[in-house]
Amino acid sequence: MLEKIDLDKKLSKKEFGVVMDELAPRLSFLQRECRAAGIPIMIVFEGWGASGKGTLINKLIAPLDPRGFKVFTIQKVSEEEAMRPFLWRFWTRLPANGRIHIFDRSWYRSMITECLEGKKGDAEKGRALEDIIHYEQELSEDGMVIIKFFLHISQKEQKLRFKSLEKNDTTKWRVNKQDWKQNEEYDNYRILFDDMIAKTDTEYAPWTIIESTNKEYAASKIIATVVERLQEVIESTKSEKEELKTKELKKEGLKKEEAKTKESKTGIVTKEKEEHPDTNKENPSAVENKAFKAIEQSLKLDVLSGVDLSHTLDKEKYKKKLEELQNKLAILHYEMYQKRIPVVLAFEGWDAAGKGGAIKRLTENIDPRGYEVIPVAAPNDIERAHHYLWRFWNAIPKAGHLAVFDRTWYGRVLVERIEGFCSENEWKRSYNEINNMEEHLTNFGCIVLKFWLHIDQVEQEKRFLERQENPQKQWKITEEDWRNREKWDDYVEAVNEMVIRTSTTAAPWVIVEANDKYYARIKVLETVVRALEEKMGKV
Amino acid sequence: MLEKIDLDKKLSKKEFGVVMDELAPRLSFLQRECRAAGIPIMIVFEGWGASGKGTLINKLIAPLDPRGFKVFTIQKVSEEEAMRPFLWRFWTRLPANGRIHIFDRSWYRSMITECLEGKKGDAEKGRALEDIIHYEQELSEDGMVIIKFFLHISQKEQKLRFKSLEKNDTTKWRVNKQDWKQNEEYDNYRILFDDMIAKTDTEYAPWTIIESTNKEYAASKIIATVVERLQEVIESTKSEKEELKTKELKKEGLKKEEAKTKESKTGIVTKEKEEHPDTNKENPSAVENKAFKAIEQSLKLDVLSGVDLSHTLDKEKYKKKLEELQNKLAILHYEMYQKRIPVVLAFEGWDAAGKGGAIKRLTENIDPRGYEVIPVAAPNDIERAHHYLWRFWNAIPKAGHLAVFDRTWYGRVLVERIEGFCSENEWKRSYNEINNMEEHLTNFGCIVLKFWLHIDQVEQEKRFLERQENPQKQWKITEEDWRNREKWDDYVEAVNEMVIRTSTTAAPWVIVEANDKYYARIKVLETVVRALEEKMGKV
Repeated sequence: MLEKIDLDKKLSKKEFGVVMDELAPRLSFLQRECRAAGIPIMIVFEGWGASGKGTLINKLIAPLDPRGFKVFTIQKVSEEEAMRPFLWRFWTRLPANGRIHIFDRSWYRSMITECLEGKKGDAEKGRALEDIIHYEQELSEDGMVIIKFFLHISQKEQKLRFKSLEKNDTTKWRVNKQDWKQNEEYDNYRILFDDMIAKTDTEYAPWTIIESTNKEYAASKIIATVVERLQEVIESTKSEKEELKTKELKKEGLKKEEAKTKESKTGIVTKEKEEHPDTNKENPSAVENKAFKAIEQSLKLDVLSGVDLSHTLDKEKYKKKLEELQNKLAILHYEMYQKRIPVVLAFEGWDAAGKGGAIKRLTENIDPRGYEVIPVAAPNDIERAHHYLWRFWNAIPKAGHLAVFDRTWYGRVLVERIEGFCSENEWKRSYNEINNMEEHLTNFGCIVLKFWLHIDQVEQEKRFLERQENPQKQWKITEEDWRNREKWDDYVEAVNEMVIRTSTTAAPWVIVEANDKYYARIKVLETVVRALEEKMGKV
Repeated sequence: MLEKIDLDKKLSKKEFGVVMDELAPRLSFLQRECRAAGIPIMIVFEGWGASGKGTLINKLIAPLDPRGFKVFTIQKVSEEEAMRPFLWRFWTRLPANGRIHIFDRSWYRSMITECLEGKKGDAEKGRALEDIIHYEQELSEDGMVIIKFFLHISQKEQKLRFKSLEKNDTTKWRVNKQDWKQNEEYDNYRILFDDMIAKTDTEYAPWTIIESTNKEYAASKIIATVVERLQEVIESTKSEKEELKTKELKKEGLKKEEAKTKESKTGIVTKEKEEHPDTNKENPSAVENKAFKAIEQSLKLDVLSGVDLSHTLDKEKYKKKLEELQNKLAILHYEMYQKRIPVVLAFEGWDAAGKGGAIKRLTENIDPRGYEVIPVAAPNDIERAHHYLWRFWNAIPKAGHLAVFDRTWYGRVLVERIEGFCSENEWKRSYNEINNMEEHLTNFGCIVLKFWLHIDQVEQEKRFLERQENPQKQWKITEEDWRNREKWDDYVEAVNEMVIRTSTTAAPWVIVEANDKYYARIKVLETVVRALEEKMGKV
């Protein structure tokens, strides 16, 4: 997922000022609310060397009441710590109810330094991962709020920072061999981080990836994330209280009925206590602010906005490449059949983005006995009576076969999320469920590729109108397509989150720039050919 | 945990008749209720070879409507199945909502046959385990009810059964080499099964171990377990509906208020619909039956009833052994210090069972710089403001040191459970939390032993009265001790469940027969000495 992140994002100092004016009072208000409600909080900072953890922690704590938080810097294990099991130093450092503990590096440190750098075997690595998952789960179930940040910078940016640190005598010591190793082997580390994040990105302790090139942007996103999460926590605490109250009220209601019956019999009137609703006059979250709103939007997860839709390919080149790639694929398809490699290709994208056309070009020239295209529509009655993944499991290709899904299990986090066909809880936990399923497939040796065919709103409208006017294409356009179009922004948000949360090294998302159909079809074919070649050790 | 199970339990055919008269109609009623509520159910049978899976599945399905269930026999993977990832054949075999699928062997089969028999490496084994846990978790979250049985017989019983199968020409084929291997390496398999059960015994998909020596007993326990679980599920479904109704009622209430205001203004009276409460006249669970009640009790988990409290040791022998063992321990204690092995000894037991005396004899002769006794009372304010395990993590001994806990983290599933100091959800999930913590310790190389000092009610009363009469011991007895005594049966149930759910190969429970103090103290010392000798490779 890290390679999908747009690292060019920035905010000016002035914009940062706007953000802080808005969020600093909210954050400090929320700290007080959490203390009053007795909610313990852990905030974790992990990331690349020189990604700015120290600086950003300082920005985060500026608005906080220092009596309520503590920062822990997690370095190499001390002698005392080495004499206890790995989690000991974190179990003993839990915040008490109502307090905030901030970790500059954390329990992920030993995962990274020891496991990922090869000091531990596979079994031990798996165990450490399990330990971490249990740790976070047990704490969350007990009411701990866990917020995890991964600070992300590019290889180039990291190199620049190391060099600039080395230039200065007072900061020289901060760069060591291990740091340079990380920079040199950046791509390997990225894969390891990706894997670590994917495996520990849970509903209860999610990771937020912070684009950390620009410190104003990074700090704003960190503070906005903490504010949002704490607000949710406080609200859900309140609504739980509300529910209890409702129950109480119901009982109370029964008592009142009784009292009234008594009253009418005895003539004695029972006095009711007046309720004073808590008025949160202090709560600054109510304040609205246009300048801030605009910046807030830019802090959101975003992979689509960086996509360059101007790519094109002329017809001549297209035809030539198409023939070339289709021929290659036909041969590779036969080889994967012989080597019993299963392939799953998942297609998602905007309506009229050209999924059908791309799939057609992909399969045109390969042996029909070795592939299947599975069109996915709304589930039927029998499918609806099962787990939502059941129908996709039923269509998993056997070894040596290729399955192309025209729309997929990602419907859960797209249409089902947006139309409310499943609960929020259901689509939120499905990112993990989907990652588990795809990992199970790739562990078996399956190639899994996921394509998002991306067009812009203008192009979509053009294609819709074309379809309406062309009698042979009219069947392709319905009222529903126009209705979906109105929800464009909701889909953008959902697609961004989907790509970030489910793009793994083993089963990556490929964003296909599809304003030009020729370009899109060739990119799909090239990607598939490349993946097959890699799997069979040809590149 | 398997070695703690009393395998001598049995029921007569007549008693089995009583059970079936009571439970068969309930089970068939619950099947209908679950179908109506659209609840899907999976029932898994695993266990030793020749433990009676086929026979017992037949007993279970006898009362069921055959249109609502299906039995799957999971054998070696077929060619078709081998061409897909391991979970494929189970994902595709999910029951639709309202249906029951019964598995004679299951997704645990490949775990056992492939992983546990060494065909898979540690990393793959860990992955398969993870896959299984995710599978069960994802299904449960979607509303699947998963009931898992492990059929347990002794090595001797298994051998008898294999021999008797081999004698008969028509059943000979059912015993193969692999079966005999299991019988010959029974203890190794037991450890593997223990580990598998501990790791996959979750709140949402718990294992029930079935004493399968006597088929009437086993069948009764299986059916009783299914009935109990389904009853819980139906009740919780109903109470969820109730809650929704309450919310509706509240809204309704507001509307009524409005309507009344209108009425008084307009003179038009709005008619209220009368509610017809569902009367479950059909529900046979209401029927009570004394003969059945008595048998039902015997179906419960039970490790304490088999404990032989008649063991004694005369004073002479005691003194001799005590000296011998204390000297041995002093030397071992020094060696473990040198080898940096940490040791955790946990003491629980009935009031006045002699924990203090046993701990005194244990530590009397060892270097005080190398051990600590940690008395555990009710948590103080600071402890209460943290996760319940926090205070125990703080007392974890460092490598080379010995920590003796006089009462422990097991308070969660004993006093806190019984007195309602924590919620049901909290103590139920703590079995797993505790297993995780202890596994984390033993993975680090720590020795973990847990002692339950067991006396009977008569002995306890005798000791209480002695304490009251002896001025020097009066401080040891309080009103609370007498109150706890009244909850004896609740504690028996809690201790039984605790021992079964948390006795692992790496961190076992040792039941100490403590009616005779001399015997008990020696058993504790012997167990500790033995464990240290084993760890240091001396036995």
